[in-house]
Amino acid sequence: MSTESPSEIRTAAILGLGLIGGSLARDLSARGVRVLGWDADAASLRAAVEEGVVHHALAGDLRDVGRADAVVLAVPVLAAPELLRRLVPHLDGVRLVTDVGSTKTSIVEAAQSLGIGARFVGSHPLAGDHRSGWSASRAGLFEDARVFLTRAPSTTPAAMHLASALWTGVGGRPELIDMHMHDVQLAWRSHLPQVVSTALALTIAETGTVPADLGPGGRDVTRLAGSDPAMWADILVDNADALASALAKMSAQLSELADRVARGDRDALLRLFADARKWHQQGP
Amino acid sequence: MSTESPSEIRTAAILGLGLIGGSLARDLSARGVRVLGWDADAASLRAAVEEGVVHHALAGDLRDVGRADAVVLAVPVLAAPELLRRLVPHLDGVRLVTDVGSTKTSIVEAAQSLGIGARFVGSHPLAGDHRSGWSASRAGLFEDARVFLTRAPSTTPAAMHLASALWTGVGGRPELIDMHMHDVQLAWRSHLPQVVSTALALTIAETGTVPADLGPGGRDVTRLAGSDPAMWADILVDNADALASALAKMSAQLSELADRVARGDRDALLRLFADARKWHQQGP
Repeated sequence: MSTESPSEIRTAAILGLGLIGGSLARDLSARGVRVLGWDADAASLRAAVEEGVVHHALAGDLRDVGRADAVVLAVPVLAAPELLRRLVPHLDGVRLVTDVGSTKTSIVEAAQSLGIGARFVGSHPLAGDHRSGWSASRAGLFEDARVFLTRAPSTTPAAMHLASALWTGVGGRPELIDMHMHDVQLAWRSHLPQVVSTALALTIAETGTVPADLGPGGRDVTRLAGSDPAMWADILVDNADALASALAKMSAQLSELADRVARGDRDALLRLFADARKWHQQGP
Repeated sequence: MSTESPSEIRTAAILGLGLIGGSLARDLSARGVRVLGWDADAASLRAAVEEGVVHHALAGDLRDVGRADAVVLAVPVLAAPELLRRLVPHLDGVRLVTDVGSTKTSIVEAAQSLGIGARFVGSHPLAGDHRSGWSASRAGLFEDARVFLTRAPSTTPAAMHLASALWTGVGGRPELIDMHMHDVQLAWRSHLPQVVSTALALTIAETGTVPADLGPGGRDVTRLAGSDPAMWADILVDNADALASALAKMSAQLSELADRVARGDRDALLRLFADARKWHQQGP
């Protein structure tokens, strides 16, 4: 792991010190970047300063954010556009504004309409797990993680370069992707599995079954039910259109299986389960 | 791990040498029990003999099965009743007949109606994973595993004692449970998660997404899709009634979440996700 600072970024402002923002602050700080920090939770901000990860706690009006080369919004996706609006008057010296949200279209469109599209790059690092908050943050979270980068219509090559350097500097692997394609892909690959896992947990919970009653398989399938509710409520609402199609297909598939079970159609079940296993056996 | 032989069982016949039957044969053989073996797949039976796990390969007519103190059926659940019917004329010296299936009502009722209820105990060891077959079998599979035991109306205390000794001898923890309660519990705790995981895999597969495209969460939720199709087609058909209720509740829960997503009802989603996390946080 490199200990050089991400090229050209001497000062970074991290707004939101949860699992992702806190971990990024740790990695940047460890590489010699001066970190300005802010969090809605005063205790998290104080802890980050006391641990020496955040060098300067930003006041709530965020007016000092302009001292940073790069500003990273690491707040829930529905809170990000409003935070971005509040930042706009204070971004004078800032060369890159980015975020870490699991949906990209809404925040990129907000940046464009606020007139800061040139300096804005939407980021989505595929890192983290079902834990959340400053206490879950840790060094090295982005090591070898894919990081999706999405541009606004007016994003400059210089801003893209800086965003790429930011994530490469903490071990990530940036990939450029169209923001709409990103959101549709994530609806199927991430948001759908999350909703299915939560729905299964709620269904099982109604019977009085506790997690310890499940075997290893059942525990795997319900693991994502432990995810952060506020973060996910935001993501689902923000990506509702793309997710609706995925959920409709999932419901239809579940109905087909239920119908085959009810009819005792062993041949059809065998065929469907064989198709699913064939898919699973592709790896990774 | 004890290396004594399970008390009172000197010779055991294992019919079906897949993951469960093969692993049981390995453990019994290692503890000095003489193992008579049979498998529908000649190559598996030959391998088990060549490895010294099975001491005597039973002929297809199974007439020598009566030499065993205990007979274990370790075949798919829909095949078990017919195999049991074929065994009946040859069970003269046998003091225990048991099985390893994931459903219990149908096999226990078959044993009772075939007139061998006194010597029959239904077993269901909670062991194994999504791999299957002789090649997946291994020593120690039942170490510390829960093993559900279900009695027929006429099962004798002596047969119950022998079944308990069989599983305790290979490291398992036997628990007596009513056969109907077993099947309903398993529908919710095991069969439902299996169907949900398979349905999700089939849904995602339709988009051209491969497992490597998923994050760790999505891979957890789809892991059971790799399970043995033939084994599961049998289980689902055999437990269709209990599973139908569970699937109906799951569909309703998924519909409710989809409806909240479509309406952008963040408060309701937050509440539902918080309920699911609260359930998940009960451990284990």
